[in-house]
Amino acid sequence: MRDVAIIGVGLTPVGEHWDTSLRQMAADAAAKALQDAGNLRPEALYLGNAYGSTMSSQTQLAALVADNLGLDGIEALSVEAAEASGAAALRAGYLAVASGAVDIALVVGAEKMTDSIAATRIAARGVSLDADYEAAHGATLTALAAMLMRRYMYEYNLGLDAFEGFAINAHANGARSQHAMFRSPIKPGRYAQAPMVADPINLFDSAPDADGAAALVLTAGDRAADLVPVPVYIAGSAVATDTLALHDRADLLYLKAAAYSAQRAYAQAGITPTDVDLFELHDAFTVISALSLEASGFAERGEGWKLARDGDILLNGRLPISTFGGLKSRGNPAGAAGVYQAGEACLQLRGAAGDNQVAGAKVALVQNLGGLGSTAITHVLRG
Amino acid sequence: MRDVAIIGVGLTPVGEHWDTSLRQMAADAAAKALQDAGNLRPEALYLGNAYGSTMSSQTQLAALVADNLGLDGIEALSVEAAEASGAAALRAGYLAVASGAVDIALVVGAEKMTDSIAATRIAARGVSLDADYEAAHGATLTALAAMLMRRYMYEYNLGLDAFEGFAINAHANGARSQHAMFRSPIKPGRYAQAPMVADPINLFDSAPDADGAAALVLTAGDRAADLVPVPVYIAGSAVATDTLALHDRADLLYLKAAAYSAQRAYAQAGITPTDVDLFELHDAFTVISALSLEASGFAERGEGWKLARDGDILLNGRLPISTFGGLKSRGNPAGAAGVYQAGEACLQLRGAAGDNQVAGAKVALVQNLGGLGSTAITHVLRG
Repeated sequence: MRDVAIIGVGLTPVGEHWDTSLRQMAADAAAKALQDAGNLRPEALYLGNAYGSTMSSQTQLAALVADNLGLDGIEALSVEAAEASGAAALRAGYLAVASGAVDIALVVGAEKMTDSIAATRIAARGVSLDADYEAAHGATLTALAAMLMRRYMYEYNLGLDAFEGFAINAHANGARSQHAMFRSPIKPGRYAQAPMVADPINLFDSAPDADGAAALVLTAGDRAADLVPVPVYIAGSAVATDTLALHDRADLLYLKAAAYSAQRAYAQAGITPTDVDLFELHDAFTVISALSLEASGFAERGEGWKLARDGDILLNGRLPISTFGGLKSRGNPAGAAGVYQAGEACLQLRGAAGDNQVAGAKVALVQNLGGLGSTAITHVLRG
Repeated sequence: MRDVAIIGVGLTPVGEHWDTSLRQMAADAAAKALQDAGNLRPEALYLGNAYGSTMSSQTQLAALVADNLGLDGIEALSVEAAEASGAAALRAGYLAVASGAVDIALVVGAEKMTDSIAATRIAARGVSLDADYEAAHGATLTALAAMLMRRYMYEYNLGLDAFEGFAINAHANGARSQHAMFRSPIKPGRYAQAPMVADPINLFDSAPDADGAAALVLTAGDRAADLVPVPVYIAGSAVATDTLALHDRADLLYLKAAAYSAQRAYAQAGITPTDVDLFELHDAFTVISALSLEASGFAERGEGWKLARDGDILLNGRLPISTFGGLKSRGNPAGAAGVYQAGEACLQLRGAAGDNQVAGAKVALVQNLGGLGSTAITHVLRG
């Protein structure tokens, strides 16, 4: 298996882009990544997208974007794992280059979510749950996440304030990011006053739906250093799954797929959690941040929230997370989020993260979840 | 790059399965393929599906099927290229095994299309077109295929009868197939009397929407012969793309993506069209069969239809096609069709095709299209 490196990153601003089509957003990000990599021509495009068919009535989006980029006739496929679609596209690109079948792969994540009526959006968001056994009864992603959070608070005897640090860190980092959707810090005391979305999840506990597109260019590890000054190597890549229905899980507060995929990615990279300099995790909800830290080996069960309380997750902390704002403040363009996460980690490992730089970052862990951890995709990136 | 072989095939009957859920159909096919391969445990599942999110409100279908199979925690991703999703999943499985990252991969194609009201179905089928520039104006896949057929008839001065042989061959072969949806031959004279669907496409020119699921088990070529009596090797695998919008194509009657992907697959396998013993092509419409034969090097431009007229495409002809009935008679469960095609080719190369056997078949070409050739995925299989 060949080593694989990331040699191009393209991150476009996340927000509400009602005036830009899905294909154009994707093409803009791809063009930016290709330019960053020195305008090589890719032989293949792997695109992550979760809601194109439901919100934009469009399948075959990968072929559409390849055409929009003028990449006449290249291989182009879409990969889907709900909100983990972005990392799924990175996984597909990784496998294609690792196999030797493809030398230059373009990985794109693109999602257009805000240009729809709320009912469409809520219904579409339900498709990442178990349609027949949970969504059919009216459950939404946020409602189920609220039940998880309530259970976490009950089991570990915590108040709402236990989660505050995740939101404050995300907004503090997003405020310094060029491509973040929300660029204002959360003022002291405002978290406690935030309106409830689905009790106990308040406005600052949940990441916003957003439009956005991001892209990466991948090539073989042994070519990368000749092509760009600072390649980023994919040292570990792993996908794992869990039940979609929460009621089927033996242990509600254990993100099994996150744990499995992290363990596999660590093993492939030959590292342990202590080697990780920063962690781009899937902070769709603050409780998921806590559970992801626990599942990935950074905290004991029931203690993930303490890393937020103690400031460990800050840019200058022991394990910085959501370094460009995360899903919460950069915004959560579902099927694109995983590509943003990986692209942001690349900027960190290049030492090109500007005001968001984690000093001396050499190893980044990147984890993207589908649904409430039904799919987990973890990559280890090395500078 | 490692050689890859297919060591398990599971084909379930195609039809209208209103009493079986999408996840169960997929799991049934997967279980059948795993049993055929000696019940090895797969490490990864790649699932082709085009309409799960629009027709069944379900994304993350790969994870759902992995869970339904009891494959606790394995890698599982969905791959989408509209009606070429099945072959896209095969491509993903091929790359995963070829890379060395995965030793045993399960490839599943599953689609549930008939358990919906007609309007939903028509709208969903439109998603494989260019949503913004063609489907938005009321175009459907069948309507655009009808325009292609009319143009073909005009350019080459043909009547409707030029296409009859494709439908008759498909139904003759489907009549002998255990898993075909329509198992009746077309009686002499009935093609000419068939009702129009979208003039000039009649009922026998177009393949039926269907429910179905099929699966394959893949492993490394050097392990395959120890595991099963007759492995089938993937000698070539290629994806190519074209514009989604027909109005953007320089040459309406040239399936560019089909041509590109066939050429790449031939080159990888080191063969030419004359080496091909049978061709499972994407006969969603009879005119597409003619165009696919031309694009893939079996006929000059404007002469693909002659292979049907002259009987070349029959089971005992020079180039048998649609040997188990094709999309037309076996049925067209969109995102599953490509896996059926590959599975049927495997049965041929094993010499296990029963009444549908092509004598002495050693090399099979398998081609799956998304939309009207916007994505084309071609595999060369060798017995």
